[in-house]
Amino acid sequence: MPSMMTQSLTISSLIEHAGRYHSQTRIVSVETDGTTTRTNWGEVEQNARRLVSALEKLGCETSDRCATIAWNNRRHLEIYFGVAGGGFVCHTINPRLFPEQLIYIMNHAEDKVLFFDKTFLPAVVQLRDHLPTIQHFVLMSGYDEEAAQQFEGLLFYDDLLAAEPDDYVWPELDEMLPSSLCYTSGTTGNPKGVQYLHRTTVLHTLGANQPDGLALSAKDIMMPVVPMFHANAWGIPYITAAQGTSLVLPGPNLDGESLVKLIDGEGVTMSAGVPTIWMGLLQALEAMGSKAETLTRSMVGGSALPSSMLAEFRDKYGVELIHGWGMTETSPLGSLNQLLAKHAALSMDEQAKLREGQGRPPYGVELRLVDDEGNRLPDDGETQGNLQIRGHWIVDTYFGAETSALTEDGWFDTGDVATIDPDGYMVIRDRSKDIIKSGGEWISTVELEDIAISHPDIANAAAIAARHKKWDERPLIIAVPHEGKTPDSDAILSHFKDRIAKWQIPDEVIFVSELPIGGTGKVLKHKLRKEYGDLLWDKS
Amino acid sequence: MPSMMTQSLTISSLIEHAGRYHSQTRIVSVETDGTTTRTNWGEVEQNARRLVSALEKLGCETSDRCATIAWNNRRHLEIYFGVAGGGFVCHTINPRLFPEQLIYIMNHAEDKVLFFDKTFLPAVVQLRDHLPTIQHFVLMSGYDEEAAQQFEGLLFYDDLLAAEPDDYVWPELDEMLPSSLCYTSGTTGNPKGVQYLHRTTVLHTLGANQPDGLALSAKDIMMPVVPMFHANAWGIPYITAAQGTSLVLPGPNLDGESLVKLIDGEGVTMSAGVPTIWMGLLQALEAMGSKAETLTRSMVGGSALPSSMLAEFRDKYGVELIHGWGMTETSPLGSLNQLLAKHAALSMDEQAKLREGQGRPPYGVELRLVDDEGNRLPDDGETQGNLQIRGHWIVDTYFGAETSALTEDGWFDTGDVATIDPDGYMVIRDRSKDIIKSGGEWISTVELEDIAISHPDIANAAAIAARHKKWDERPLIIAVPHEGKTPDSDAILSHFKDRIAKWQIPDEVIFVSELPIGGTGKVLKHKLRKEYGDLLWDKS
Repeated sequence: MPSMMTQSLTISSLIEHAGRYHSQTRIVSVETDGTTTRTNWGEVEQNARRLVSALEKLGCETSDRCATIAWNNRRHLEIYFGVAGGGFVCHTINPRLFPEQLIYIMNHAEDKVLFFDKTFLPAVVQLRDHLPTIQHFVLMSGYDEEAAQQFEGLLFYDDLLAAEPDDYVWPELDEMLPSSLCYTSGTTGNPKGVQYLHRTTVLHTLGANQPDGLALSAKDIMMPVVPMFHANAWGIPYITAAQGTSLVLPGPNLDGESLVKLIDGEGVTMSAGVPTIWMGLLQALEAMGSKAETLTRSMVGGSALPSSMLAEFRDKYGVELIHGWGMTETSPLGSLNQLLAKHAALSMDEQAKLREGQGRPPYGVELRLVDDEGNRLPDDGETQGNLQIRGHWIVDTYFGAETSALTEDGWFDTGDVATIDPDGYMVIRDRSKDIIKSGGEWISTVELEDIAISHPDIANAAAIAARHKKWDERPLIIAVPHEGKTPDSDAILSHFKDRIAKWQIPDEVIFVSELPIGGTGKVLKHKLRKEYGDLLWDKS
Repeated sequence: MPSMMTQSLTISSLIEHAGRYHSQTRIVSVETDGTTTRTNWGEVEQNARRLVSALEKLGCETSDRCATIAWNNRRHLEIYFGVAGGGFVCHTINPRLFPEQLIYIMNHAEDKVLFFDKTFLPAVVQLRDHLPTIQHFVLMSGYDEEAAQQFEGLLFYDDLLAAEPDDYVWPELDEMLPSSLCYTSGTTGNPKGVQYLHRTTVLHTLGANQPDGLALSAKDIMMPVVPMFHANAWGIPYITAAQGTSLVLPGPNLDGESLVKLIDGEGVTMSAGVPTIWMGLLQALEAMGSKAETLTRSMVGGSALPSSMLAEFRDKYGVELIHGWGMTETSPLGSLNQLLAKHAALSMDEQAKLREGQGRPPYGVELRLVDDEGNRLPDDGETQGNLQIRGHWIVDTYFGAETSALTEDGWFDTGDVATIDPDGYMVIRDRSKDIIKSGGEWISTVELEDIAISHPDIANAAAIAARHKKWDERPLIIAVPHEGKTPDSDAILSHFKDRIAKWQIPDEVIFVSELPIGGTGKVLKHKLRKEYGDLLWDKS
């Protein structure tokens, strides 16, 4: 007999805690039809238990995948806990993917049940014949005559739950059981599934919410704008359950005006989302004359945080933007930018500069840099290297894959190129497949693009590696001028002087009318490399 | 192959994190000789690794106990991590115990090594012949001629470490391995050992430091006044390593003046200790004219927090006192008093009232109330019951015991009587062996004593259960008057009117010149019950 109690680390224990100690804590949900529902952790916990009972009757067995295509709303929250807490796997799907990707993902996951919001009814009707594994389609609403007519055999979430008892008891689960599944949307190749476990989810829930992490408490009113189909909404559903935090789930409309109304109307104290969202919020705050009085801080991740945005939120609204970094493969928290005690001595500008980076890892994960041969590189804040990660909530093997996703010595290569300073502060410099390797030195395309776009004549720009006889690769800029502007290559190149080391200045600028953009809004650099990659060869 | 990485939850991973990401973060240590050392997490981690290597050479094997009798200082911190991180068990001993208890504990634990501060050299010299299992006695200092002369074969900590390489690598450990051991000092019977595991310690480290918990960050400068021989100093050594918090270890002198000097001199932001310590601190702050500018909050536990102290710290110094509750058996955090979002609407006085109790449990532990037959009692804030606890960091079986310490259904009975309100806020009302059971209703002796002591003529008082024919038990007060005062029983009893329900008013007050006090400073109520327990029998 061990000297201390040992209990499983399970997702059901998170929602049980919320139901037991925070039952009256409010959860505000903007529904797909535009109405607003007010519920609480007690009701969410009870409905989640009813859902387990319903899924068992529908024939679900341990580790069966139940998928969702849904916005951030209360039913989605109940499904998160009910599916995982019942021993099934909650597979959240990004509705913005192309139909063929959706079909691939659901077939690859062999989903048995699909829950979806009415927004996606037309899409699901179209996809249905391509989804042979799905036995039950559940509309996340009460009975809907219109939907029932369009979709034979459609089930309705509220009806399913209404038929279940409210005294169902959570089953006991092994903490190594899978709990949820999320596919990455890579720019090339098929999407890959990351299957989280109960244990890894609970450890992330505790590890990511330390005071230098998300830092949510029972005094907070949290509005996750990051979608629940994106890397578990950065763990916020789990963290808020464990902490008894009040939630505001914003539903389908994520425009600035809708968000400002929720922040001011519900007294939101914290939020989380990608930079684009905060740009829209800034404009709406200005237009609506709101001061976002209750909002104290926001997590920002998904892409780099512009320093001007950080300053504007801080100076105009007293809102602290907290920069974090992570991936679907990392549950997602990999690093977060909070200062150390010694940084209190720095000036405001120096502190702001430090906070532009992606920050340092919390206890539970470790980061390292290696070169292309796998040799460890120094954490000197200067040397760029391939960023690798390991820890308690990092992927080992993609769902259904036969080989590990890790290096031989057990680290996950993120595909990013970064620097790490001696205190562990990490800055993403590029994607490793994009970075330019010139004469043994690495040149960040992110940095070159920032400079190019800061030229008044340039609307958009991409930097790529062009092959070179002497230097292996040299930087080349593909730029889109502003309408009516006709800059020449030399004018743009001279703009790089004094902004970057001389050997990093691109060799040439090519002007085009538009850049190739992929389904997720990113520039397709592999297309540019194919088209322009040999342009410098004859000149080298 | 699991889909996610799984790593052991070990104490060595905590100190590795500190050494890797917070190596330069300062640790200030007041040594036993009165000098002050400045070190950092990097050096602590390196010394801890050297210590593992030294212990292996001294013949220590997995799970061997290494004991400490020491103050809060840097060497003690290194021993915490080195002993546990090496796979041995760090057994912290309370030096305030009687010699026979010290001997019992060290023999029962079969300690193999004893580390001690020079303060305790005379005691250890006396005890030595009674400690047959201890093979190595290590003075926590550099070479000391005087000590060497008194103690044949004495080893010196600094010499041990100096002989070791600095490239020793932490061994890989199973998370279910024991890591540390602490004996409870009950008022009756032999002390009982609680043996913590790596896993339970790491889960406590994460679970107890959520924003509604200790909430330590890398921006903090923490001074633990709670001794490192008391329930792992409430987990602070582990938490500060995981968070990279700066530490101020106050050494042997815990008087108000010494603490004020450390707070102001080192910029301490947070502290933790028992109410007595804060009483001394308040007096010293006043006397020294300090405003404790950097101090923002303090954890208070060990015994109930007087509301006047909470108000004085808040109003005069802007320091928030945070009330917590726990036991050696609970690692120790069982509950902590932070408010919910809905409490923001309460008045300052209502909030202060709520914060006088012991608070609610964090995710990771659960509390319940049962009657003497084990039936669950309601969480209505009124009903008093036996407080029971279970969770990820709660004792199962005492060290060396053959039977579980738990109830049949797996809960640990704390020996406290408490109330719990619907939000889970718990208030300790009494020790279960002290509470008075009158006509089926329970009367708290803590409450009766508070009222008795608030009478201007009374210096100290104890309430006990006296046997009664009709009501089974009735309250009796044993009181010590202030010098020169000769109150009568009726005067004191009338002081209870309007302060408590009529049926709870004691039947009689007995005056004595002093109360029997045990080794740990607590009134020995079993002695009072033996002497006065039959006093009401003939009158009933």
